[in-house]
Amino acid sequence: MTTYLITGSSRGLGLALASLLVAVPNVGKIFASARNESAGIKKLVSESNGLVEFVQLDVTSQDSVQAAASHVEKSLNGKGLDVLVNNAGLMPLLFDSINKMADLESTFQINVSGVHNTTSALLPLLKKGTLKKVINLTSTLGSIGMAQASAAIPTPAYKVAKAALNMLTVQYAQTFAAEDFTFVAVSPGWVKTDLGGDAADLTVEQSSNALLNVVLSVGMQDNGKFLNIKVPGWEDKYDGQCPPW
Amino acid sequence: MTTYLITGSSRGLGLALASLLVAVPNVGKIFASARNESAGIKKLVSESNGLVEFVQLDVTSQDSVQAAASHVEKSLNGKGLDVLVNNAGLMPLLFDSINKMADLESTFQINVSGVHNTTSALLPLLKKGTLKKVINLTSTLGSIGMAQASAAIPTPAYKVAKAALNMLTVQYAQTFAAEDFTFVAVSPGWVKTDLGGDAADLTVEQSSNALLNVVLSVGMQDNGKFLNIKVPGWEDKYDGQCPPW
Repeated sequence: MTTYLITGSSRGLGLALASLLVAVPNVGKIFASARNESAGIKKLVSESNGLVEFVQLDVTSQDSVQAAASHVEKSLNGKGLDVLVNNAGLMPLLFDSINKMADLESTFQINVSGVHNTTSALLPLLKKGTLKKVINLTSTLGSIGMAQASAAIPTPAYKVAKAALNMLTVQYAQTFAAEDFTFVAVSPGWVKTDLGGDAADLTVEQSSNALLNVVLSVGMQDNGKFLNIKVPGWEDKYDGQCPPW
Repeated sequence: MTTYLITGSSRGLGLALASLLVAVPNVGKIFASARNESAGIKKLVSESNGLVEFVQLDVTSQDSVQAAASHVEKSLNGKGLDVLVNNAGLMPLLFDSINKMADLESTFQINVSGVHNTTSALLPLLKKGTLKKVINLTSTLGSIGMAQASAAIPTPAYKVAKAALNMLTVQYAQTFAAEDFTFVAVSPGWVKTDLGGDAADLTVEQSSNALLNVVLSVGMQDNGKFLNIKVPGWEDKYDGQCPPW
């Protein structure tokens, strides 16, 4: 029975992924974590026959991360955590020149330090798990090699943070490769969420299904990779390949 | 008469570069900035016939950065600043597993936010300059594409910060390309400084001379590039080419 923890589950992709996992065979527990238990999480918990459990988690707070890890440890009752999906993040827009950017550090704290805090706190439970997968949600906006194509998208702090997250993912991958871990950075595409906006390419359903495929299929051979999702009908843009760093 | 400002000039590469610039033709002023006026800066100032001027600057403090910009503006007396070299940085070592890394944010603050703070504060003076060059000191340790080769080097926070700095450099390059700016990220090699240690490849003299060549030669055609230095006798490793992101 596989156990999952997803950060940023209050809405959007995190909530959708938690919902999809309920129907996956052999799922033992899905920890849907967020700063607050949203209406969406409450509904999912109530309809999940005990599979989904809310965990209060603010990824930027060491105290919160430690409390969440203790909560999960007790709930697992001696078992390990198999899969961690670091999905929590934010993408501030900047409608001014980059020299006016005032949210570089706060964006780094949530998108990068938040992943580090969460991963390090849950690492003992992940080591006890059977799958040892950590899926970090990144973005092709964090690809420096694709920066020219992304030039018009006014999210400089997010681009810097996701490039940093990609390097962090590789550092974790290298450190724990010998313990059979799989760390990957996955770009979920441009999705019609509160973060992505209405003009985005993909519905939450399309992206979360593609993301689920990645979560279920990646293994040690993928450790340290930067992966794009694969979406039927969108293979020109979402091809399941590795974007450039 | 060309004007320069170098951050992190108290010692190491920053001090060496400031010293080399004194002998370059048509140099009008070299602002050697650091948190404190080191013995090395004092000596250089006293021997420079007025060419080198110390500027107190803590790149992590907005107040300090603004005060430094005011100081430089007054000293330039209506002229612009031609070249900014963002050299200040630090590289903490981690002799433990990456999940124990406790200096991710402080390393980001100095190596990335520090560059952003300094560049944004000096941007009005750079716009008045004739060369409009910003040289950001990065490292091939910040190359995600080269991460496998760097796996044994125990500096995860620095690697993450330099990857982030590379993306920040590209974001600035894109924003100010139309105003004829040149932003580049330059790796100065592994140098026998306090930061690099005694086992490093290059002497401070070798690296600072190679760095000087980059500072003097880069132009708009290089805007947004990640550049390695070129060192005679070390062309296999320091080839003057663009490392992968």
